[in-house]
Amino acid sequence: MTEHEVKQQIISAISKARETTPLSPSITNTVTTNLVANAQLAVGGSAAMIYLPDEAEAMALIGGSFYINMGTLLPVYAETLPRVIRVLKKNSKPWVLDPVGIGVGSLRESLLLSMKECPPSVIRGNASEIIALANLWGLDSGMDKDGVRGVDATDSVESSKKAAESLASYTKGAVAVSGEVDLVTDGNITVFLDGGSALCTKITGAGCSLGGVTAVYAAVTSPLIAALTASSVYNAASELAEKNCKGPASFQVAFIDNLYSVSAEQINKSSLRIVSA
Amino acid sequence: MTEHEVKQQIISAISKARETTPLSPSITNTVTTNLVANAQLAVGGSAAMIYLPDEAEAMALIGGSFYINMGTLLPVYAETLPRVIRVLKKNSKPWVLDPVGIGVGSLRESLLLSMKECPPSVIRGNASEIIALANLWGLDSGMDKDGVRGVDATDSVESSKKAAESLASYTKGAVAVSGEVDLVTDGNITVFLDGGSALCTKITGAGCSLGGVTAVYAAVTSPLIAALTASSVYNAASELAEKNCKGPASFQVAFIDNLYSVSAEQINKSSLRIVSA
Amino acid sequence: MTEHEVKQQIISAISKARETTPLSPSITNTVTTNLVANAQLAVGGSAAMIYLPDEAEAMALIGGSFYINMGTLLPVYAETLPRVIRVLKKNSKPWVLDPVGIGVGSLRESLLLSMKECPPSVIRGNASEIIALANLWGLDSGMDKDGVRGVDATDSVESSKKAAESLASYTKGAVAVSGEVDLVTDGNITVFLDGGSALCTKITGAGCSLGGVTAVYAAVTSPLIAALTASSVYNAASELAEKNCKGPASFQVAFIDNLYSVSAEQINKSSLRIVSA
Repeated sequence: MTEHEVKQQIISAISKARETTPLSPSITNTVTTNLVANAQLAVGGSAAMIYLPDEAEAMALIGGSFYINMGTLLPVYAETLPRVIRVLKKNSKPWVLDPVGIGVGSLRESLLLSMKECPPSVIRGNASEIIALANLWGLDSGMDKDGVRGVDATDSVESSKKAAESLASYTKGAVAVSGEVDLVTDGNITVFLDGGSALCTKITGAGCSLGGVTAVYAAVTSPLIAALTASSVYNAASELAEKNCKGPASFQVAFIDNLYSVSAEQINKSSLRIVSA
Repeated sequence: MTEHEVKQQIISAISKARETTPLSPSITNTVTTNLVANAQLAVGGSAAMIYLPDEAEAMALIGGSFYINMGTLLPVYAETLPRVIRVLKKNSKPWVLDPVGIGVGSLRESLLLSMKECPPSVIRGNASEIIALANLWGLDSGMDKDGVRGVDATDSVESSKKAAESLASYTKGAVAVSGEVDLVTDGNITVFLDGGSALCTKITGAGCSLGGVTAVYAAVTSPLIAALTASSVYNAASELAEKNCKGPASFQVAFIDNLYSVSAEQINKSSLRIVSA
Repeated sequence: MTEHEVKQQIISAISKARETTPLSPSITNTVTTNLVANAQLAVGGSAAMIYLPDEAEAMALIGGSFYINMGTLLPVYAETLPRVIRVLKKNSKPWVLDPVGIGVGSLRESLLLSMKECPPSVIRGNASEIIALANLWGLDSGMDKDGVRGVDATDSVESSKKAAESLASYTKGAVAVSGEVDLVTDGNITVFLDGGSALCTKITGAGCSLGGVTAVYAAVTSPLIAALTASSVYNAASELAEKNCKGPASFQVAFIDNLYSVSAEQINKSSLRIVSA
């Protein structure tokens, strides 16, 4: 694919989400639930958050895709998550995983391990999380197994390229790594996307909501294009928001407004580099 | 009642809430808790959210009214909700029910069924939810029993008129149906309210917070006037917000600001039609 | 300490938080989690919210400080809170307690009672909550034991001076009382801080997020200076926000923006009075 072809597919996915209002239910953390839902609505999707096992199964069947974010685990997730990922697999529903907090707690570790057998369509995280997940699943991360902790990114996006490609090849899906430059790969082609705003690190849930928005696009296009679309839209919306804000809160308001109105023209102006995996 | 009399009662309820800061505790979903609380504060009320059974009972006794929203059920609700609705009934406390998600999951169904014996003062939902609740309670909905699913409204407000009136007659309270045109009924008179903004569908929690604000007014006036006041205030505040925003997030900011400052003049200019039920 | 010395230490704490991005994990209520996290990020800190016991223990070890807010208790907190406060004590980690809701429910009472043996570094609340906690712990509050209920402050800041000083002396930490005038004490010196905005009472979580921000500063300075810094920064940011808003929601946006950019000059202009305890 050429850069032009990729951008055309991104623009097409943006339109399709706006026209079809795909429902992407989420099991996501309580800190950023509201932002996830509002970001999903802003790009044209429909949102619903769930905790109980039978509700998650029901919503997985109704939704066009699903989003699982591993932040703020509750006891009931020990039952809900294994049940919902089995339903997602059985019904070939695309779903997005954000392995936030990988390395903290035994429930998160056992749940993430179990997902190796029911893998997500798109994995989204920062570099440290992507490297840690590749290590947890015994895939080639190109890195020593180190203990990634908590929510902070300490590795560079570039350093996670091997881990991201290994995960994408294993899942036959896509992997998106967020950072100063974003990386998206399906194991065959790897794309670096420039742009965005450093203010994204000053609002809680920029990454979480990117996962939710990726799930919206995963309901209307391939995992690779879904991840590329979400990243492009986030970069364009945040770049513009940075120019029209006075701090992190007005940045967030402008950012969501821009998600709602991002144009083909903005996508065409954005910068992305395609390399072989 | 004439249109003028209704509007005078609405204006009086708005003032009374601002002057008396009524406490309306909530059991509400985790997606929109923050918006519910901020909307309640903006119209002059006081908010508190609860999960545990004994805390819910204690707050039900302290509050002037109560709000129960059925989104994002947690395991503890199986005990908390039956206990709190018994306390509300025993103490004749007005309370508002939003049956969001009706049709999804067994706990929600059994809880909603049990509320037939301890009915709410005001039921607020979209047309599909109101029809589904009337069907669940075995009341005349004027519609075939169909499976309403999730959070989306697929039926028109007009089509839910019979269901809304049946529910209002059964509960001896009021029912409010949200949509392009809102419907509020007590089973004797039915009121259609114009206005509002389509951007309400692009922010999460517009409906949830409307329920919370209805509970604030239910602490200071009758169920019918409480539902009419909340709907009128929401229509006026959202109409004005739409004119002063750049997208869904700045719409939400302007909307809450307008809830805080909505005036008698704006209510007098709003359009409502009263018909017999 | 003179007023000038106090202000220099406040300005130094503000800079240190911005330079070192201290992580202050929280167990906090679901209504205001998002605001707590965004306020912590705005002042330069890093946030993480936890529910499960082993995750809380792990994050307590990683964090520079910790924040516990007693709103919206969930069943799992019966295990999580006792375990995390033991880890915090054993590792001498500074932590901040907001005893919101004191007086409501048996779990909250037993947890708050148990904290007498593992006391927090900073206690932050409104006057009613501070008096109630001193009474619960059997300390001299200078007041009759009365039943404080829910989230509303019914006592004046001035009336809680004795209770605050008793708690600070007992914990060998600091106590901060929020109100029209704020009071901060370590049991030896007591400081009254003017300023702030009444609009803080019209947004949910102003107090909760003040606790979270206090925890950020507690990672980089003493309990007394942490509490003074948080209160000063909140007063400066909210005063300025009030001048640039149209209601509670635009106030909140401007307030968070101002937390991000509050300057030494603004702190130097603020008014505080130091008295002996």
